[in-house]
Amino acid sequence: MTYCVGIQVAEGLLMMADTRTNAGIDRIATFPKLHAFVQPGERVVFVASAGNLGTAQRVVFLLGRQIAADEPDGIHRCPTLFDVAERVGDLLARTVRRYREANPDSTVNFACDLLLAGQIAGGEPALYQIYPEGNFIAATPDTPYLQIGESKYGKPILDRIIRPDTPLTQAVKCALISFDSTMQSNLSVGMPLDMVAYRKDSLEVRIERIAADDPYMRKLQKAWGGGLRSLFAQLP
Amino acid sequence: MTYCVGIQVAEGLLMMADTRTNAGIDRIATFPKLHAFVQPGERVVFVASAGNLGTAQRVVFLLGRQIAADEPDGIHRCPTLFDVAERVGDLLARTVRRYREANPDSTVNFACDLLLAGQIAGGEPALYQIYPEGNFIAATPDTPYLQIGESKYGKPILDRIIRPDTPLTQAVKCALISFDSTMQSNLSVGMPLDMVAYRKDSLEVRIERIAADDPYMRKLQKAWGGGLRSLFAQLP
Repeated sequence: MTYCVGIQVAEGLLMMADTRTNAGIDRIATFPKLHAFVQPGERVVFVASAGNLGTAQRVVFLLGRQIAADEPDGIHRCPTLFDVAERVGDLLARTVRRYREANPDSTVNFACDLLLAGQIAGGEPALYQIYPEGNFIAATPDTPYLQIGESKYGKPILDRIIRPDTPLTQAVKCALISFDSTMQSNLSVGMPLDMVAYRKDSLEVRIERIAADDPYMRKLQKAWGGGLRSLFAQLP
Repeated sequence: MTYCVGIQVAEGLLMMADTRTNAGIDRIATFPKLHAFVQPGERVVFVASAGNLGTAQRVVFLLGRQIAADEPDGIHRCPTLFDVAERVGDLLARTVRRYREANPDSTVNFACDLLLAGQIAGGEPALYQIYPEGNFIAATPDTPYLQIGESKYGKPILDRIIRPDTPLTQAVKCALISFDSTMQSNLSVGMPLDMVAYRKDSLEVRIERIAADDPYMRKLQKAWGGGLRSLFAQLP
């Protein structure tokens, strides 16, 4: 499995993904699942995936190739992020169908879910969850975060903390705790983590890697774990 | 769905279950899913279920009838809790098979999972998770709690708090928080809750109902929710 979360707040967007893949408990590997397509000052699009890695990599590879070749279908030519999401959704659905139709008797699940977020100059930032069927939903102020993959362990803390006016730095902290809770309880989600913290209108992104021994992550894990236990001890 | 947790600590046993059942989002009802079979001073057995309600109720009804009729197969005659778990597992597996075989084309899932715990005079307390196939596992000091149903949301807090030497009252508090986290994030789990807090060697149990407006539960939810937010705000 995998765990990815996307958060949209007034200050900008956050996307975080772990890097563990597993095909069975004894086939574990590290693969990036967060990818960025950037034309600085013009548009930023970042995509995270959970599910079949072959499907996700094909989508990401083809998106990059279309941009590199300046194809009219490339997402670098879409006028709005909605169009980007629609194009990525179509490519995803075609990819899933491609493998399914070639393997009618296979029990392999070729589906994958995507989170897509970004901003195009002149437009507002947006965050989408794209389903394997190609359809998608957008985050809204009522539900300012979206999750894919192994999402349940880390959901309670997001539900309690994330609001549209949560500062971006606090959203990062909350996402790290959401990942910590997930990794404590589920082996299929693991460090390192990849993250994009996008400040609205900056039109520039950088994927940051949070290593297993990242000093801030360590400090946060210790403070949160210890804090939870003492909060628990103080309860009526 | 449903959420049930069983905890085994040195001081005794705890079992907690919600009471919401749903067959589709618009068929929600309240049914007890925690049942006790008690011969005061001799043996206590309590069972919680998650999954097909018809299957669970059949198992519980037949267990009660066997005891009432003093049948040799009744769990009131088993010499150890292991034998009780085995007998309940066999009855569960037979029940699941019964409906499956009668409905070979049905897509209904007739399976259900059980938690079973208790103590027989002269023996030690034990806690088991019984699968729809009739096999089962016991809690151990390494893993002193077992969950069935909608278990992921409420797992992180159990992982952080529950140890074999956790006092029984603290285990109750922790289970209530685990349920609170689950109910905040998932509509299929709902109040009221049923609970058995069994003190080792007391050989007596009482199912307690925690109502939606239970003052302690309210206080706990408020203290935990508020405490989490201020702990979060204080993090580095």
